[in-house]
Amino acid sequence: MMFGKVAIIGLGLIGSSIAHAARRGQLTGMVAGFDSDADVRARAAAIGFAAITEGLEEAVTDADLVILCSPVGSYAALAREIAPLLKVGAILSDVGSVKSAVLRDVTPFVPEGAAFVPAHPIAGTEFSGPEAGFASLFDKRWCILTPPPGTPPAAVEKLKAFWEGMGASVDVMDAIHHDLVLAITSHLPHLIAYNIVGTARDLETVREAEVIKYSASGFRDFTRIAASDPTMWRDIFMNNRAAVLEVLARFNQDLAVLQRAVESGDGQYLFDFFTRTRAIRKAIVEIGQDTAAPDFGRKS
Amino acid sequence: MMFGKVAIIGLGLIGSSIAHAARRGQLTGMVAGFDSDADVRARAAAIGFAAITEGLEEAVTDADLVILCSPVGSYAALAREIAPLLKVGAILSDVGSVKSAVLRDVTPFVPEGAAFVPAHPIAGTEFSGPEAGFASLFDKRWCILTPPPGTPPAAVEKLKAFWEGMGASVDVMDAIHHDLVLAITSHLPHLIAYNIVGTARDLETVREAEVIKYSASGFRDFTRIAASDPTMWRDIFMNNRAAVLEVLARFNQDLAVLQRAVESGDGQYLFDFFTRTRAIRKAIVEIGQDTAAPDFGRKS
Repeated sequence: MMFGKVAIIGLGLIGSSIAHAARRGQLTGMVAGFDSDADVRARAAAIGFAAITEGLEEAVTDADLVILCSPVGSYAALAREIAPLLKVGAILSDVGSVKSAVLRDVTPFVPEGAAFVPAHPIAGTEFSGPEAGFASLFDKRWCILTPPPGTPPAAVEKLKAFWEGMGASVDVMDAIHHDLVLAITSHLPHLIAYNIVGTARDLETVREAEVIKYSASGFRDFTRIAASDPTMWRDIFMNNRAAVLEVLARFNQDLAVLQRAVESGDGQYLFDFFTRTRAIRKAIVEIGQDTAAPDFGRKS
Repeated sequence: MMFGKVAIIGLGLIGSSIAHAARRGQLTGMVAGFDSDADVRARAAAIGFAAITEGLEEAVTDADLVILCSPVGSYAALAREIAPLLKVGAILSDVGSVKSAVLRDVTPFVPEGAAFVPAHPIAGTEFSGPEAGFASLFDKRWCILTPPPGTPPAAVEKLKAFWEGMGASVDVMDAIHHDLVLAITSHLPHLIAYNIVGTARDLETVREAEVIKYSASGFRDFTRIAASDPTMWRDIFMNNRAAVLEVLARFNQDLAVLQRAVESGDGQYLFDFFTRTRAIRKAIVEIGQDTAAPDFGRKS
């Protein structure tokens, strides 16, 4: 048993999946769960993946590991409330998709005797809420830890073992580099997906019903990502602005070049460009970060 | 039996899938197949989904239906060669992803007594070549016919029945409208996917190995589309320029607004935007054009 008690704050897709996965791995004697939304608490209690508490204090008290699983915009207020409740030796962690802002918001509140070890599991689906969680979400996925300088190595090791026990592989990196990596691998893709779905919806010349009907030719892939949780994504863009704007600027420059190639009918440029991008797909499939089945193995 | 002999010119993903699906539906007495690439012909012959011929003439002679399944840039030359071989009453068709350019390139060659009925099945995967084809590719997918004014209705009806026999539903529309619909549902999504994969590959601040490793957070979805056949996609962008540039201009305008919202930290705008795009995903799943399973039902 790694931890006597784990407290999960925020019972959405990731929080509920941690509860399932920690139980599957027999990593803790008890999972306590709290969510600020009473309806979410009731639904989580009905599913039964954790001992749901009516207050934050009851969840956090005596916990050996407290994991913030709510949108990152809520962390500062939560940390302020949780800090005085943390027992000596407790680890405070999170699952936020941005890490510099999380360090900025949480670190000031972390009391002596407790360790803050930020974490970000690179896993998820387009579904939200306590019903969306499942035990195998983190299997074969990466979880990135970004401990600030001075974090006790033992706390980092313990959290690493916890994530490995839930099926993940663990990397440790600097928060600033994390935010740049995620800006290109996750935040920009989401921004672009949201944007193209918006463009398609608002076109005057093609009806929305036609876009929906003929979506199997490419568009539908983007709608999955653009169905992700709006609060979570608002908070990510509010808290990783510099990195997102940096990669977006590059994306815009590259798109302008591609646009000129289409305008001028530069077939050789287009062919070469479209040939080079194939290699990355191949590499992703080869290291097991995506399925080799055509069309993601869709059954529809 | 709908057709005595069907000739398929171009034995890639779509051509080979038509051969499989036509046989499954018992729609024809014989499928003849030709490809300009000798290696593709040999591989197709080894699979055995059609009678592979060494020349175009042998495939087309006596065919009741001839379907061009090669990249659209090859159509004009092919049509010139095929036209004199078409028998009276034959239907010439295609599967190209653009339709105005196809009408421009092929119509001048269509002889008296034959009918040209352009078609575009809204189906595919990221894989190419004769090995990629399978009989159920068109099941529950749309196929759009764009017959020019004056096309004999009987020929349109016959081709419609053929596609329905392969599992598709058939719509008829004007070629110009088709090209605009596909520009937003397919061509722009592909251009954007190719572009973001290119941007990620070329960033100096994040290594390509990191992009590949942490791709499960969104990026990998784009790499599937960006692994599509380069020749096919070069030809699409060369032949649907106006419509692609029109929707791309709208995409760029919309992205500039979203960029300003990120820059200024306008959380309410971002939240509202991300909320509206969810509805389109729901509608696509509801009409059966995508799976409801999380993450496309990926098993990886």
